[in-house]
Amino acid sequence: MSLITPVILCGGSGTRLWPRSRKHRPKPFIDLIGGSSLFEQTLARCSDPAQFADPVIVAGQAHVPLINSQIDQGRPHQVIVEPAARNTAPAIALAAARLDDQAVMLVCPSDHHISDTEAFQQAAADAAKLAQDNWMVSFGIAAIKPETGYGYIRRAGALEGGYEVSHFVEKPDRQTAEGFLADGGYFWNGGIFALRAGAFLDELAHYRPDMHALVMASVAEGRNDGACFHPQAGHFSAIKGESIDYAVMENTARAAVVPVTMGWSDIGNWDAVHDALPRDAQGNNCEAHPKAVAHELVDCADTLVISDTARVSAIGIEGLCIIVDGDDVLVMSKAAAQAVGKLDGASNQ
Amino acid sequence: MSLITPVILCGGSGTRLWPRSRKHRPKPFIDLIGGSSLFEQTLARCSDPAQFADPVIVAGQAHVPLINSQIDQGRPHQVIVEPAARNTAPAIALAAARLDDQAVMLVCPSDHHISDTEAFQQAAADAAKLAQDNWMVSFGIAAIKPETGYGYIRRAGALEGGYEVSHFVEKPDRQTAEGFLADGGYFWNGGIFALRAGAFLDELAHYRPDMHALVMASVAEGRNDGACFHPQAGHFSAIKGESIDYAVMENTARAAVVPVTMGWSDIGNWDAVHDALPRDAQGNNCEAHPKAVAHELVDCADTLVISDTARVSAIGIEGLCIIVDGDDVLVMSKAAAQAVGKLDGASNQ
Repeated sequence: MSLITPVILCGGSGTRLWPRSRKHRPKPFIDLIGGSSLFEQTLARCSDPAQFADPVIVAGQAHVPLINSQIDQGRPHQVIVEPAARNTAPAIALAAARLDDQAVMLVCPSDHHISDTEAFQQAAADAAKLAQDNWMVSFGIAAIKPETGYGYIRRAGALEGGYEVSHFVEKPDRQTAEGFLADGGYFWNGGIFALRAGAFLDELAHYRPDMHALVMASVAEGRNDGACFHPQAGHFSAIKGESIDYAVMENTARAAVVPVTMGWSDIGNWDAVHDALPRDAQGNNCEAHPKAVAHELVDCADTLVISDTARVSAIGIEGLCIIVDGDDVLVMSKAAAQAVGKLDGASNQ
Repeated sequence: MSLITPVILCGGSGTRLWPRSRKHRPKPFIDLIGGSSLFEQTLARCSDPAQFADPVIVAGQAHVPLINSQIDQGRPHQVIVEPAARNTAPAIALAAARLDDQAVMLVCPSDHHISDTEAFQQAAADAAKLAQDNWMVSFGIAAIKPETGYGYIRRAGALEGGYEVSHFVEKPDRQTAEGFLADGGYFWNGGIFALRAGAFLDELAHYRPDMHALVMASVAEGRNDGACFHPQAGHFSAIKGESIDYAVMENTARAAVVPVTMGWSDIGNWDAVHDALPRDAQGNNCEAHPKAVAHELVDCADTLVISDTARVSAIGIEGLCIIVDGDDVLVMSKAAAQAVGKLDGASNQ
């Protein structure tokens, strides 16, 4: 088995994690959990030289300084600078086009949290084997609750280390999600994929020939600048943005899924941050921020406090997130976590 | 009827209104309600020259600069600087000893809120008449709920404009308070008193001869410094601190009560601040602080937001107070309002 090439996608803006996540300092690059950024943790998970080749990072120009400040500069890497945001299928195709056809890519969002690195690496090995046999492989996260915020993957017949995919399901309603959980044959689609570069480009050429042609042209006419590669902007910007799920995974006859239980979270909102953090006996966490002063929680339960410099004192509250960043104070019930992105503060940064 | 002399007591520390109330900027001197401080509002209520003489303010040395910055310097006044904090009986006695025996004092805490100034002034007139006849007169606030945080006054036979006092009751338990409310013959003890200076000193000499002697000695040996009068410190510090209620009101045979309904609150905690402020249709107020930036409340109810510079955004919360002051953020359920003073932040300022 040859080495796996990590392809790290730095796309999401993370407005639901405002006010810590900001336009100039978005979600992948802030320290939310565990003393380093989700981007740094993503790189670290794929750093064993016995398993992984040098990483390829796909990101917008605005994120390049953040990447340079957080990446180990001693580790060879390549940053592909997207001239425009066109969703995941073109981003992954850029990486594929820059790699050898035989290279097996492990596509990883840069803003997820995974607590069990060993399980991740085992799944990566299983997925890479299938990818070498030209399967388009999704990580299938073991569903542990009837989550309505994720897409699902239905498994079909067994493969070595995984399953063929029967079909993909978009975010279900609550009742449907409960049915999936009871059924046991459905996984969460975690947005992590193992793909042989050449095989992926072949499938893309088949199902999205225009996108394929524009990506190949933008790479052919691109230019290197140190560790950065700049695809030609005109071709790339002409692409109609689409996710890998829509463009390839739901169309291909060779979709596979590798089941994995690895303490995964997409850290989609503050409630998810709280879920990924340790808690005291009352379910509180007020020590997540590395520069935090000593906060004081009295008669509080199920509450998350994150603050950069202000001291937070709380009494008699339950099920809240209190996030302080600079001159912004956010107080919300955990049940309202999804609504943060709609706040004036989050939308007019 | 001669003019009434306002005697304004600047005693309370207001730790339950932390973090806005601070040691260096205590409760009477901060703008909580209505665009001016409670001290300024107290002075303004007693400013009609047809009813009130020049005010006497009793305060500690630390508060003198705040008083000087908030008082109308064109209005003659006297500040009696307590050498030590010895509760209300000695403070009131200092003022009495500095005034003519015939002067009628209206003793007012500097940190209460009264929304109906006309009702206050009418009650002051009624109380002053009784005080001229040597009654020791309490304002009896009409009880509107079974409050367990106040003392109560039981009325006896009618007097002109008021009643004789049967007895004073310390803070009752809930059931007792409900009984008082149903009975109708009980008032809240609001800590506002009308007293003829000479009559009060006579009663004090009778019931607390040591305190009386030490106050008279500290005034006899005191010194003037501009508008400030400094009682001699040694005598005054030797006094055993005691409230007027304990030292005189509960002992005297001439206690009277004047009933009044005047939108009174002692603004004892943040819940009380919220009660004294206007509210929107959802019961929220996020506009109380004069320098407030535009806060945003989404799906919130019964919530108070006060912040000096930070912008507060809240979603899906109910029955909370969010107070931001400098580098301190306080978030609490309104039911926990009484516990604020016990926070580390409030107790170690």
